[in-house]
Amino acid sequence: MDSDATTDTRPTPRPGGRSARVQRAVHDAVNALLGEIDRAQITVPAIAARAGVTPSTIYRRWGDLGELLADVAVERLRPDTPPEDTGSAQRDVLLYVTQFADEMASGPGRTVLRDVIGSTAENRSGTCCNVTRNQLELLGERAAARGEDFPGVEYLIDTVIAPIIFRILSNEPPGEARVAALVAHAFGTMPDPSRAAPALSAPSS
Amino acid sequence: MDSDATTDTRPTPRPGGRSARVQRAVHDAVNALLGEIDRAQITVPAIAARAGVTPSTIYRRWGDLGELLADVAVERLRPDTPPEDTGSAQRDVLLYVTQFADEMASGPGRTVLRDVIGSTAENRSGTCCNVTRNQLELLGERAAARGEDFPGVEYLIDTVIAPIIFRILSNEPPGEARVAALVAHAFGTMPDPSRAAPALSAPSS
Repeated sequence: MDSDATTDTRPTPRPGGRSARVQRAVHDAVNALLGEIDRAQITVPAIAARAGVTPSTIYRRWGDLGELLADVAVERLRPDTPPEDTGSAQRDVLLYVTQFADEMASGPGRTVLRDVIGSTAENRSGTCCNVTRNQLELLGERAAARGEDFPGVEYLIDTVIAPIIFRILSNEPPGEARVAALVAHAFGTMPDPSRAAPALSAPSS
Repeated sequence: MDSDATTDTRPTPRPGGRSARVQRAVHDAVNALLGEIDRAQITVPAIAARAGVTPSTIYRRWGDLGELLADVAVERLRPDTPPEDTGSAQRDVLLYVTQFADEMASGPGRTVLRDVIGSTAENRSGTCCNVTRNQLELLGERAAARGEDFPGVEYLIDTVIAPIIFRILSNEPPGEARVAALVAHAFGTMPDPSRAAPALSAPSS
């Protein structure tokens, strides 16, 4: 048995191995090409040539171009640094979520979202959600260390992250005020102003 | 003013025109092919041949295959009938949303979601969101006619629809109990059990 075989439950390749080198080279090639030519014109052979591997290496490992682009997209979602520490749990979350919303609503952010969601790989968008979950958990641990209350992470995902992503995907990206309202609502510091129905006119039956 | 006019902003082709006939024939061809061969093998020329139009008619109207598949997908999302009237606003919403979640979480439902979201057309997923919005508005009007309270439709979208779709896209489709909890929470009849953080262990400092 070749221990190098990928089962695609995303075992991260050992940092020094050939597998990791191939992954790095192919990801770098995709990112370089994305900076040079239109995304629709990127092909597996072009990526392979740039990365110095054979196309069949790419097909064997990623399945197809869509999977590879989604894999690169998820990699980009992974933050380089922990969220900033503002000294307050709610401000920490607000800052993180505001940046997250900005990033996701940008042109490249939407492309990333669509690559990830459009990908057929069973666990790809799970990975994407996990990146956000890990960041929020980190903020929750920080709040606990300060003795502050913190909403459940799954609750924050449902009430803050989900509406942001849903609205972006529906081409109605939320503004800063809306993001702040979602966070404040999740922290229980204010009722969501959209909670009450805006004067639904009763039918004149 | 024709009280029957739909508020959908998509310019629906006139029912009897050539444009409508082409649209119907092409949609039917796509649906027929989807039932016969693998989706990845469907091509514009195959659709054109089946629909009795030229490929250039399809390219001119839909741009590319992805757009056409997304258009067919949105059409499928459009419900044939108004949501069932259970006599209570919360039960109406629960019934509609439970069916919606089931449908979206199914294999074909996810394909529809991905086609719509993966489509680059600016207003496609907006249309998709509008279908749901219209159904919820209808339930709100029904509640108003009964003199019942009803949460804001945008609030329901953010707190019920968004988390359902987000969890499905993240490969964590919500179960029936979770859907019921989201609806009850939106109606203010119970606190969301995931609101409180589940025993976050404070660092042992």
